[in-house]
Amino acid sequence: MQMSAQQIAVFLLSISIMLFAAKFFGEILNKLKQPAIVGEMLAGIILGPTIFGYLIPGFSETFFPQSGLIKIALDGITTLAVVMLLLVSGLEVDLSMVIKQGRAAITTSVLGIIIPFVIGFAAAYYSPDLFHAPDNNRIFLFALFTGTALSISALPVIAKTLVDLNIFKTPVGLTIISAAMFNDVIGWLIFSIILSMMDVSHSIFNFMQTSALIFAFIVILFFVGRKIINRILPYLQTKISYPGGVLNFIFILGFLGAAFTEYIGVHAIFGAFLVGIAIGDSVHLKEHTREVVQQFVNNIFAPLFFVSIGLRVNFITNFDPVLTIVVLILSFLGKIIGCTFGAKITGFSKREALMIGFGMNSRGAMEIILGILALQVGLISEAFFVALVSMALLTSLTSGPVINALLKDKKTKQLFNFLSPKNIIFTDILSKDELIYHLIEHTPNKINKKEVLSKVMEREEAIPTGIANYLAIPHARVNIDKPIIICAVNKIGLPFSAFDETLSRIIFLLLTPENKNELQLQLLADISKKFQSREKVEQLFELDTPEKFYSALKKL
Amino acid sequence: MQMSAQQIAVFLLSISIMLFAAKFFGEILNKLKQPAIVGEMLAGIILGPTIFGYLIPGFSETFFPQSGLIKIALDGITTLAVVMLLLVSGLEVDLSMVIKQGRAAITTSVLGIIIPFVIGFAAAYYSPDLFHAPDNNRIFLFALFTGTALSISALPVIAKTLVDLNIFKTPVGLTIISAAMFNDVIGWLIFSIILSMMDVSHSIFNFMQTSALIFAFIVILFFVGRKIINRILPYLQTKISYPGGVLNFIFILGFLGAAFTEYIGVHAIFGAFLVGIAIGDSVHLKEHTREVVQQFVNNIFAPLFFVSIGLRVNFITNFDPVLTIVVLILSFLGKIIGCTFGAKITGFSKREALMIGFGMNSRGAMEIILGILALQVGLISEAFFVALVSMALLTSLTSGPVINALLKDKKTKQLFNFLSPKNIIFTDILSKDELIYHLIEHTPNKINKKEVLSKVMEREEAIPTGIANYLAIPHARVNIDKPIIICAVNKIGLPFSAFDETLSRIIFLLLTPENKNELQLQLLADISKKFQSREKVEQLFELDTPEKFYSALKKL
Repeated sequence: MQMSAQQIAVFLLSISIMLFAAKFFGEILNKLKQPAIVGEMLAGIILGPTIFGYLIPGFSETFFPQSGLIKIALDGITTLAVVMLLLVSGLEVDLSMVIKQGRAAITTSVLGIIIPFVIGFAAAYYSPDLFHAPDNNRIFLFALFTGTALSISALPVIAKTLVDLNIFKTPVGLTIISAAMFNDVIGWLIFSIILSMMDVSHSIFNFMQTSALIFAFIVILFFVGRKIINRILPYLQTKISYPGGVLNFIFILGFLGAAFTEYIGVHAIFGAFLVGIAIGDSVHLKEHTREVVQQFVNNIFAPLFFVSIGLRVNFITNFDPVLTIVVLILSFLGKIIGCTFGAKITGFSKREALMIGFGMNSRGAMEIILGILALQVGLISEAFFVALVSMALLTSLTSGPVINALLKDKKTKQLFNFLSPKNIIFTDILSKDELIYHLIEHTPNKINKKEVLSKVMEREEAIPTGIANYLAIPHARVNIDKPIIICAVNKIGLPFSAFDETLSRIIFLLLTPENKNELQLQLLADISKKFQSREKVEQLFELDTPEKFYSALKKL
Repeated sequence: MQMSAQQIAVFLLSISIMLFAAKFFGEILNKLKQPAIVGEMLAGIILGPTIFGYLIPGFSETFFPQSGLIKIALDGITTLAVVMLLLVSGLEVDLSMVIKQGRAAITTSVLGIIIPFVIGFAAAYYSPDLFHAPDNNRIFLFALFTGTALSISALPVIAKTLVDLNIFKTPVGLTIISAAMFNDVIGWLIFSIILSMMDVSHSIFNFMQTSALIFAFIVILFFVGRKIINRILPYLQTKISYPGGVLNFIFILGFLGAAFTEYIGVHAIFGAFLVGIAIGDSVHLKEHTREVVQQFVNNIFAPLFFVSIGLRVNFITNFDPVLTIVVLILSFLGKIIGCTFGAKITGFSKREALMIGFGMNSRGAMEIILGILALQVGLISEAFFVALVSMALLTSLTSGPVINALLKDKKTKQLFNFLSPKNIIFTDILSKDELIYHLIEHTPNKINKKEVLSKVMEREEAIPTGIANYLAIPHARVNIDKPIIICAVNKIGLPFSAFDETLSRIIFLLLTPENKNELQLQLLADISKKFQSREKVEQLFELDTPEKFYSALKKL
């Protein structure tokens, strides 16, 4: 059995059509400041049975057939794609960040899992018909799944939203991202348990054996494997062709982990995700390697997967408005209440806690992957799948705008209410500690400088405050009445661990009153917003007086 | 029809086994200073029917089955892999370099095609039985194929060999690489004509129609498409997410080209290759994009393809020693005579012409891809395929060592016979033209400086002489008795378009006698050889006198 030349031509054409449609709609959504994956899924819905399949039946049958060799070959590619996608998602998880954020992140995450889980479980258990549960003998499992589906978050979408809003490195942003990482790991663990309880893979292992094996896998991977990986990586990078050796290593390990979890009766992607976390956690993994993997997977394979979602189901005939509205209400309520409450009790203000709640509300890709798996094994109906996809899209689309609205400054909360040319210093200092000390020296005399210094340094040591495009914003909340902002300009630059690995040449010291949490956040966002174009920022370095710098900054 | 969980586990495990074996043997060959693909193919031969299939039959049947869903999924992946591989090979072809090398490259290439083609054609036509021709009704086509198989070269292997020997940017190196590019394009064109004559794809087009379509495709792609691509690329890079947008664009166009050529009855890879050339030719394609594509394809997909070769055929039972020896002799003789003769009549010395002959002799991956296609369509027997693979490997393995032997310096041909501390200058000049002028100022007075300057600048404008690791070697052959070498050290660096995009901080002006061609080559290679470790080179910049610099250079 082998594809004929005609079939190979169709197979290749199908892939280019999928890639093109994904990019086309992905870019449109990007221009609208929305996540590209929404566009990529839209592309699939248009190409699949919902639109093209209905309007031009021959098209879908030819290019995206439901059976035959082309389908098997395309399935092979999308299987690889989703395994690679989870491997990359795992690489992005930074366990040490979760630990650093500690109590706030974990409390937020745990409450953000428990509350929606309970709501989802109860709703599905007591009214399975509303959810079109396909099998009345598995109501318990079905309810477990519904609970899990409502409690999952989508790390990649959340990270993108926070970066777009320039609040990634704020306390709110870091709490959201850490809580989302923790949420991801726990959510997938629960789901893999559900899968093994169903024994859908007709695995040779029973539930207890699978649980024991997955537990052993996690323990070995994180307590032994992680250390071995951390030892092997530097060896690979120096002794073996770079970055080829490391790239290979990542994929070999990822596919092995995937094969193992699939074999023992959990899904392949869970293994890939865990291996990704274990590798990404190594301090020896170079940014360059991570970038090559991410660029390729996110631009070529992930779009193929997201388009393939829309090809599976007719989103119009399977659309149940009542079910979709119920799922939407339950998922918004559960997640936002859970996370907001969690954030509030760990000390965030009401407004900040709401931002965290809405930030965590994004379900994105993870929800959909979960939905597909459940659909494939017959645990949920197509109508519930469509409702889940709608919910994933709507939660992802709303979280950015809502956080942005919560951030909205009144006039008094903008940078230029607190900055004047006399607070702009040109300096040659190349030591980061000295520079921060120097900035604090410039604050008014009534300030307790020792206290301020220790607070700023503490924040800096926890997570450096470099942003991007030469900007860094060391900051602290201290005992003052109104914000103090001092700006240092250094034409060489200092290492503040910015995202884009530039040295920071423009450093704002931002001090805000202790009791005004949002004010800090709003000022951080307001400053970052001015630094979006690297080219424009570079023009600032040609200016030679604080006055010129100040007025150029105003125009940014 | 869908893979079961067990089959997905096996599919993922097969891929990790293939990647691991490929990397393992590839690295061993790398350590032996041989091309990695030889190791990757060896991995396939070991995993396939030849070794493991013989020793542990269950292993091959489980992981690399000859039929069933896993095979179809794996075939889908290897099809994508070879299309991607040719797309990347196309990106590496630089048409403008071929044109710049002009007559020498084209003469070498044409004679290097015609002579082996005639030899191969005649041998196969008059003794088809020796070659195990499977079908006596197609002897003419079979002979055409044999001629083509003997006349093809392998651009990627050749480029790697030249870079390893540090002679890529010498006249000999540039002639080899340009001739190989031209050879590739012509070779694939002939092969695609043979394929369409066979009508193996049961194409809806007859031979004349296919020829007309492929001709139209080439004309449109290179006269219209290339210009459109060149316009679109800057747009994509600025308006659309970078590098994601460009990556997508490359693959969409590549798969489209592949689907088109496959559809009209030529093979998919020919379309991918042509599209690769058209895109790679654009001055707007950034090095970063090319690198992401190459790293990923060369490290993940290409190895999967090369391993898959060994899985197809038993290399022991199908090994015919007489046929293999005949193929080896014919291919070595044909190619080396053709190319050496071509290089000689365009003005290279005998020794240089021989280097060019052996350089062009590498058949590498291209030969094997050709062989697989011919095997798949039943044009050649498995025994001939095995002979072709052996020939491809042996020609690739011998070309580096032979060129190296031809380069071997006698004592008098080394750098330090012609360099002394007084010829080392520390300078702050940051203009490339000024620096070259300054270097020439330092040559002895008897030299015709105006002539030297114009020759050096001419060479520099044709192709800049930056190598890598901060080294550049502007050079010319002029009317002198013995070589003159002047070295400039500039701690900031000047743009000589080095491979690794470093600025050149150590610049050797190399003037050699007009009548001593190899001497120039040997000195170029001798200088480059000293600059293989970037770390060691970086230590040079801490030295502050010519004497210290000279003795540190000796120890490199």
